[in-house]
Amino acid sequence: MSDDGTTSTDDARTSEQLVELAKRRGYFFQASGAYGGVGGFYTFGPQGAALKGNVEDAWRERFAVAEGNMEIDAPTIMPEPVFEASSHLDTFDDMLVECPECGESHRADHVVEDNTEYEDAEGLPIPEVEEIIAEYELVCPACGAGLADQAVETFNLMFATNIGPGDAQPGYLRPETAQGIFVEFPRLKEYARNQLPFGVTQIGRAYRNEISPRRSIIRTREFTQAELELFVDPEDDEPDLSAVTDVDVTLYPASEQEESGGGHVETTIGDAVEAGTLQPWIAYYLGVAREWYDSLGVDMDRFRYRQHLAGERSHYASDCWDAEAEIDGNWIEIAGFSDRGAYDLSKHDEYSEDRFTVFQQYDEPRTVERAVVDPDMSYLGPEFGGDAQAVVDALETKAERDRAAFESAAETAAGESSGDGSEPRDAESVEIEVDGEHHEIPVAKTGFAVEEQTEAGEHIVPHVIEPSFGVDRLVYTVCHHAYREDEVDGEDRTYLALEPEVAPTFVGVFPLQSDDELEARARDIVDELRAVGLSVTYDDSGNIGRRYRRQDEIGTPYCVTVDYETVEGSEASGDGRSGADGAEAHSGTVTLRERDTTAQKRVSIDDLAATIEGLRTGDLTFDELDG
Amino acid sequence: MSDDGTTSTDDARTSEQLVELAKRRGYFFQASGAYGGVGGFYTFGPQGAALKGNVEDAWRERFAVAEGNMEIDAPTIMPEPVFEASSHLDTFDDMLVECPECGESHRADHVVEDNTEYEDAEGLPIPEVEEIIAEYELVCPACGAGLADQAVETFNLMFATNIGPGDAQPGYLRPETAQGIFVEFPRLKEYARNQLPFGVTQIGRAYRNEISPRRSIIRTREFTQAELELFVDPEDDEPDLSAVTDVDVTLYPASEQEESGGGHVETTIGDAVEAGTLQPWIAYYLGVAREWYDSLGVDMDRFRYRQHLAGERSHYASDCWDAEAEIDGNWIEIAGFSDRGAYDLSKHDEYSEDRFTVFQQYDEPRTVERAVVDPDMSYLGPEFGGDAQAVVDALETKAERDRAAFESAAETAAGESSGDGSEPRDAESVEIEVDGEHHEIPVAKTGFAVEEQTEAGEHIVPHVIEPSFGVDRLVYTVCHHAYREDEVDGEDRTYLALEPEVAPTFVGVFPLQSDDELEARARDIVDELRAVGLSVTYDDSGNIGRRYRRQDEIGTPYCVTVDYETVEGSEASGDGRSGADGAEAHSGTVTLRERDTTAQKRVSIDDLAATIEGLRTGDLTFDELDG
Repeated sequence: MSDDGTTSTDDARTSEQLVELAKRRGYFFQASGAYGGVGGFYTFGPQGAALKGNVEDAWRERFAVAEGNMEIDAPTIMPEPVFEASSHLDTFDDMLVECPECGESHRADHVVEDNTEYEDAEGLPIPEVEEIIAEYELVCPACGAGLADQAVETFNLMFATNIGPGDAQPGYLRPETAQGIFVEFPRLKEYARNQLPFGVTQIGRAYRNEISPRRSIIRTREFTQAELELFVDPEDDEPDLSAVTDVDVTLYPASEQEESGGGHVETTIGDAVEAGTLQPWIAYYLGVAREWYDSLGVDMDRFRYRQHLAGERSHYASDCWDAEAEIDGNWIEIAGFSDRGAYDLSKHDEYSEDRFTVFQQYDEPRTVERAVVDPDMSYLGPEFGGDAQAVVDALETKAERDRAAFESAAETAAGESSGDGSEPRDAESVEIEVDGEHHEIPVAKTGFAVEEQTEAGEHIVPHVIEPSFGVDRLVYTVCHHAYREDEVDGEDRTYLALEPEVAPTFVGVFPLQSDDELEARARDIVDELRAVGLSVTYDDSGNIGRRYRRQDEIGTPYCVTVDYETVEGSEASGDGRSGADGAEAHSGTVTLRERDTTAQKRVSIDDLAATIEGLRTGDLTFDELDG
Repeated sequence: MSDDGTTSTDDARTSEQLVELAKRRGYFFQASGAYGGVGGFYTFGPQGAALKGNVEDAWRERFAVAEGNMEIDAPTIMPEPVFEASSHLDTFDDMLVECPECGESHRADHVVEDNTEYEDAEGLPIPEVEEIIAEYELVCPACGAGLADQAVETFNLMFATNIGPGDAQPGYLRPETAQGIFVEFPRLKEYARNQLPFGVTQIGRAYRNEISPRRSIIRTREFTQAELELFVDPEDDEPDLSAVTDVDVTLYPASEQEESGGGHVETTIGDAVEAGTLQPWIAYYLGVAREWYDSLGVDMDRFRYRQHLAGERSHYASDCWDAEAEIDGNWIEIAGFSDRGAYDLSKHDEYSEDRFTVFQQYDEPRTVERAVVDPDMSYLGPEFGGDAQAVVDALETKAERDRAAFESAAETAAGESSGDGSEPRDAESVEIEVDGEHHEIPVAKTGFAVEEQTEAGEHIVPHVIEPSFGVDRLVYTVCHHAYREDEVDGEDRTYLALEPEVAPTFVGVFPLQSDDELEARARDIVDELRAVGLSVTYDDSGNIGRRYRRQDEIGTPYCVTVDYETVEGSEASGDGRSGADGAEAHSGTVTLRERDTTAQKRVSIDDLAATIEGLRTGDLTFDELDG
């Protein structure tokens, strides 16, 4: 269900093949399979864990280190008050419909989307979803029973647990890593020396008790997020767009989505900002992320930024764009870029004991007029007794908010007209309310005055710009976009054309056949390559063709095969490391095979590590090699 | 409560100071502090997260990459059947005593240990703990009320949750990363091509709902483990000890602990194996870990390996040693090295649908005699009806286990004596039991025979050697052992003498004072140093002395200060990068300051990155620098 005109080159078969390959080669598979597995929980095998680690490292390098942001590592279990403040407890719900026959629960919005023309049922009110189910006579996807009379209910997606024994405290597994950052803002701002803008990142687990986990690692119940929360002064801070202004992007703005026949807009970050399509902070991160995704091997022909429709956004977000990748002809969200405004910090400021503000110094101290009171307690005390302090508080608030009430009363007292044509007040007193009772207080007794005060700055609640990345979905996308099938020597071949930056194994080393000398030499080469930091695997099982196929499926960019020419060459020159110092020296060589082309070249063993390292960094290409 | 004769140089004050420093400088602090915090949950701030990441990377390098083990990444929520098999559901309990007055819950064994001479109350049966509480008239540590009549109860330490909506499945947060490895053994062995020994590692969160979390990040409810599960053939596999045989270790064997006046044994890994104190696999990892801990800055004068006493070990473990670090005069467990035998895989083999065995090929095929049956169904069918198959199964089992029963019956039938002096059986039949009923089956109807079979190998349940590291405790130990106080220029100074390998920030760069030119040059230097992969911080806030103190507390090994000599020198030589090609060229210099000595030297800006990189790798020492 591609929802725009882009033609797709892949189909669901690729995902089926990929999921099989992922299991067979140690990328990912459903966890606890020996016990039948549980929906939505996946284990990353040796290759998948390494690929995921490479993606996380690359993200950290780009979004934390290079941007000068701080990375933190917070617990995944958080206490209930955090989620009262964040409103996850009240509103982090999905719509649930339970089958009256088989008892299985389904997401009501998915049942609607999969079987009607409605595309965004998640945003519809529950009664409307119930009506659609009845109208279309929708049935249980599991058993086919009718769902028409079933109530649609809300289901909170947080995993709940109890902390401690006895009268346990409720706790929840965080539904996003972001709350672990927001809740520590009062301390984090100290580490940032109270200077806006500053950014804090976290890579870690998040949990959502999905009703219908599906599509392998795309919609799971436990997943890894990489999130950046940038805290900015909305008045003063602007990004430096110079580094991203020329980045090409495919945008799918809300306006195009709402228009029939609307489509993708091919533009640059700079032009999109100028046209008002993108606000600067979001534009900055869309530009950075686009180049970053490209470097990881996400296919830029199957990548776009889609703006949320107004009804789709959280109420507090002023704008939100998703990075989407095309998988099997569907557009899948792999990141969100949101302007969350002051929402998160304001809520924690309101609900907690701490202050979630930053003192912003003015360029120059400012002189402001401020209305103050200094009530005459010898009058208020006898008059109001135990309520006197409450009266003082009410007077202070009134002075701040309604200075005119004091001034016009004072003017009346002075026998002058207010001068602005309004009716002068009857009394020389101001009216306040304490606990629902109204009182008139003579202005003369309030000590009202307007004073000039010099202020160095003000406390503001920073706004939050949030680029939020789903790591598992990105791992899936990287593998899916790298999935290739071709034919080699008349045989079908499958391989993953992974980029060097993410490939979990960079080079495979094989002895050509079972032979102590070849095996020893191959193991030496493994050690030499590992010593320069390359990720290397050794394999001497089965025939050489099978070993190449195995590394092709793993996506290993290069394979080195040690054969008798290797050891004979090495013997002729005395040892395997020399031979470069004389033209006659017959240095040992190995076969170096390139994954994508399956081309093979004989290269010298002497500078093998440097050669392969050059291929990894891109300083060298396979075509440039002799041999 | 140091439990042996080692004198301690630190005291609880160091921990108090460290915990304050950790909060102030962004190492670690109790999470969700704005909401009052919850015991046992800590957030790692920017410095702590980087230090923890460095420790994890170093562990991965040593225990996964260098050892050729596979690393995986499994979910933290696992379904109930896993923990039924692992027996965590039944036995992963602590002893709980609740105060009758204030209602607070305490670990009964801790109340006993803290207030009596009992040192290992955890291993005592509950009635005995209740008796000790009554006998010593122990009181609630919170309010002082007597606990004598309170029942001591068990409390399961796993955090429970529910997976999915409706009739939810129970799930638990894993109490150790190990189960995520064990449960996937059937697939992992395929990745290892069924070759023992092979190792699988995982670094990840684990959760224990501690009754009394305490001591900062030493006993928390959510923590990070780095575990290696090595699967070995107990008959055939042996470690290569050559790399560790000369490693010095301080051992505290069970025998010394049980003896009054027993103490530490200073020995080497090789000698300890020879003396029979250590079994080879555990010895190997103790040697590797000792050198690894040393490289991270754990003080080897406050480090030992302590063997578990027989009563302290899990019933299935044949041996277990803890790595212990001395903190404030207490010995704290920071890792465990356990021979878990076949326990884990046998349990999952028994409880799950999959097989947790490996087929081990013999060097040569073996011919074995095997007792088989081929029952006469035309007899068993009419005789036993629906139970006939159960009778067949019982006969097969009996033939495998008690061949003699068939043979002696057969001999009786043949009219011969058994020849070994035993009483010949009365009947020509064997007795079997089906569902509690005994049946006699004539041997002639069983088709009993002893056949010669050729077998290529056998299915074995591998044994598990488990080095298990607590990352949070190690982070704490590394900081604690690096904590120093001294006096510089008459002022007290605090610093962390962290090793380069783990220091979260390696170099601080400062402009001497507020000046656009100095600041720009300093920022250039930051970029140059980051480009070679160094972890760099820039600071221009407050005076230079305060900035040095801040970096000292963070443990930053070196600081670079840019002053007017830097920019003047650079200008004189045309630009800041040249100047090395002529003796007259007056190259720019910066001040390089060493953390531990506070010594400062002026070094050339030209090769600053190479100089600092040399200091990091140890190729260069500060003393060797000119200036």
